[in-house]
Amino acid sequence: MSERIWTAALVVIGDEILSGRTQDKNVAQLASWLNVQGIRLAEVRVVPDVQDAIVEAVNALRVRNDYLFTTGGIGPTHDDITVDAIAVALGVSVVVHPQARAVLERHYETRGGLTDARLRMARVPEGADLIANRMSGAPGIRWGNVFILAGVPHITAGMLDALTGTLEGGLPVLSRTVGAWVAESEIAEMLGETERAHPGVSIGSYPFFREGKTGANFVVRATDAALVDRVVEALLGGLRAAGREPIEGGI
Amino acid sequence: MSERIWTAALVVIGDEILSGRTQDKNVAQLASWLNVQGIRLAEVRVVPDVQDAIVEAVNALRVRNDYLFTTGGIGPTHDDITVDAIAVALGVSVVVHPQARAVLERHYETRGGLTDARLRMARVPEGADLIANRMSGAPGIRWGNVFILAGVPHITAGMLDALTGTLEGGLPVLSRTVGAWVAESEIAEMLGETERAHPGVSIGSYPFFREGKTGANFVVRATDAALVDRVVEALLGGLRAAGREPIEGGI
Repeated sequence: MSERIWTAALVVIGDEILSGRTQDKNVAQLASWLNVQGIRLAEVRVVPDVQDAIVEAVNALRVRNDYLFTTGGIGPTHDDITVDAIAVALGVSVVVHPQARAVLERHYETRGGLTDARLRMARVPEGADLIANRMSGAPGIRWGNVFILAGVPHITAGMLDALTGTLEGGLPVLSRTVGAWVAESEIAEMLGETERAHPGVSIGSYPFFREGKTGANFVVRATDAALVDRVVEALLGGLRAAGREPIEGGI
Repeated sequence: MSERIWTAALVVIGDEILSGRTQDKNVAQLASWLNVQGIRLAEVRVVPDVQDAIVEAVNALRVRNDYLFTTGGIGPTHDDITVDAIAVALGVSVVVHPQARAVLERHYETRGGLTDARLRMARVPEGADLIANRMSGAPGIRWGNVFILAGVPHITAGMLDALTGTLEGGLPVLSRTVGAWVAESEIAEMLGETERAHPGVSIGSYPFFREGKTGANFVVRATDAALVDRVVEALLGGLRAAGREPIEGGI
């Protein structure tokens, strides 16, 4: 069973993430959305608002993945350089997209009009299409397999909504979780053996400390639902054999 | 005034981040800690639990930064492959560190003893030193400019505490924030002019939508406190001139 695996990468553009000022939410948001589209998030890079850094990351990742997403840096201010940097990466000019201009003209009609700064948000790499933005005026941008999204998470979410169902993907990755109040080191061998015995499945082990106790969740992932179920049964049996009552669904 | 800038990169190792299951907290945590050490977080990569991906990221980033940190994948289970992958990247063997073994023997003395799975956590790239872990048994690892830390955020925090003050850095980056209830597109030109007029300073503009209103915070960063203060004064004046009452400290 050698099914085609579709992959995506994400470049998070923003000094605010690298300075620690802002907690990124777009990695988890995009990853969850991609899972549903049958696409795996294969790699993420966080780069500063510096053209060379953006160009390097975009060009490294867009050729080895089916899709490349970026978040951040598409607003109207001087530190919003994403469109220019990606145009350099793609080797094309930056042009004002007439439809984006029309959208912004409408959006700002009752908000002081379309100034030069606002018109910046209609600029796209030549040949790009737009991604609808129901939340605020400025649209996202699609150029080939490159998707340029906003950085503010609820605007990013709206753009992902607009893209739902439009990208080709494979089988969605299914997952089930089993938890137990156990130190993962106690059942590490059983976990590894269970994974090796079931090709096509991955078992992640995620320890935590809560209420003064050690526990772990074990996440079983595969594209085949019956395989996931078999591995979950094996884990339930393995945990009980170790004297640890498993908790289906995780802790 | 050309001061030496010290940089660090971070490789986050973990399928759980790329699957969207777990929200990363270590980027923001490490970034904030590095700021205090006078070191800038220059780039982050999130890679899966796959040896080739870890090797590529570690080798790309450790040569072009003063320090390279990794988080995740140093536990006792089959998916914890960080130490082996980094040893491959460094071109050295993996050995059991006698002091790490002693730490684990003590830690597990009353917890069922040091099993093979637990002994995995004493393995290090040959030539490594240990980083103390007050939280749980297994230590972090330092090899040259590479720092291998835990993925569970409060354990990572303990290891960073142990490293505080031990790394050479430059002047800490200072920052002050000014907020206003304004669409950033209204004052984009003033922001850009203010930044250009003050070499050595960066002004980040971070828009948000709250209580049905549009606002933005402007973060002024530089290593020179007097310069930061001058730019904040300029921003306060610029915002008032635009008819928007600034809020010092941000919104």
